[in-house]
Amino acid sequence: MDWLRDPQAIYKESFATIEREAALEHFPAALRAVVVRMIHACGMVDLTTDIRWFGDVASAVGNAISARKPIFCDCEMVRSGIIRRFLPEGFEPTCTLNQPSVPTLAKQMQTTRSAAAVELWKDELEGAVVVVGNAPTTLFHLLELIERGGPKPAAIIATPVGFVGAAESKQALADANLNIPFVTVLGRRGGSAMASAALNATTIGREWS
Amino acid sequence: MDWLRDPQAIYKESFATIEREAALEHFPAALRAVVVRMIHACGMVDLTTDIRWFGDVASAVGNAISARKPIFCDCEMVRSGIIRRFLPEGFEPTCTLNQPSVPTLAKQMQTTRSAAAVELWKDELEGAVVVVGNAPTTLFHLLELIERGGPKPAAIIATPVGFVGAAESKQALADANLNIPFVTVLGRRGGSAMASAALNATTIGREWS
Repeated sequence: MDWLRDPQAIYKESFATIEREAALEHFPAALRAVVVRMIHACGMVDLTTDIRWFGDVASAVGNAISARKPIFCDCEMVRSGIIRRFLPEGFEPTCTLNQPSVPTLAKQMQTTRSAAAVELWKDELEGAVVVVGNAPTTLFHLLELIERGGPKPAAIIATPVGFVGAAESKQALADANLNIPFVTVLGRRGGSAMASAALNATTIGREWS
Repeated sequence: MDWLRDPQAIYKESFATIEREAALEHFPAALRAVVVRMIHACGMVDLTTDIRWFGDVASAVGNAISARKPIFCDCEMVRSGIIRRFLPEGFEPTCTLNQPSVPTLAKQMQTTRSAAAVELWKDELEGAVVVVGNAPTTLFHLLELIERGGPKPAAIIATPVGFVGAAESKQALADANLNIPFVTVLGRRGGSAMASAALNATTIGREWS
């Protein structure tokens, strides 16, 4: 079998293919690397048609991490997709989904574990980064929290996936006028890999003071 | 905001949507749950057109895990997407990608870390389960190993994603006539969530002796 084995060549050819095939020209320069990595994570160049954003999410994420604000992830897959060597040394993203208190909290609140897990972010959510790759109910709960005057994150990356609530929650984010930089993908498509790829696009090559 | 909060109702409505919209009828009964969960993981019902398989991958995975053969994953995202409560107690999937010897090995072999990591599976690969969700070079290297008379896994779940080698490696698997049960998705689409979802479909609800 004949296949490309050089990791640098693979990356280069991948990104060249995306640049050639994807309609990147209507994205602001600061967002383009984010969009490219989201496409890279899913193999679909037509993802561009569904991407919506507000503000400069890359700078907002970078500034939040510079200030050592937490990165809150909705699930462990997102957390494990975040590349540690692009982050400040010793800096770890947070996922509260599997905290022991979450199942009981979810029952009390009559909601999903993914929504209840957001409650554990509250004390540190102001100015933090939120990355949702899987659960629409995480995003819905976060939006309700913010709209009720709760703490506001500095940036939201939101690509929950699937058939119930994914499209609706992302449309709600896009329509919410929260004045928080975000990037999302309308419709059913999304996923944890796409979410962590978007985050990684904002941190690659940065020097952290 | 009005949104569905009951986790059971969310699952039920998700799977009902997939049953209604996806062309599941040309898959054998034993594969259908696998296909449904792969679609669930990516939000795309037209995934069915690209799915290829051989044999009864669900039974092959189940038998391998019953015999406590390892589950080898190409990356940590796949490993973290595998639901532990569906596995025998204390059973952990394996990912060798971040083993300290891998970068040096990759340099020596003039290949990617993802391919080199397969070398560390060799002693236990016979009869094991392989789950590839990210790296085409893992799948290429595995196929070469098997075709050269190396150890044969019991089942292969392969959904590497992207623009360089993903489509080619999955086509190579589909064409290889290895007599090993597999499931794959032709083309660029795929991903870690899809791969672990396929694995989870084969383990949910099982009683392990």
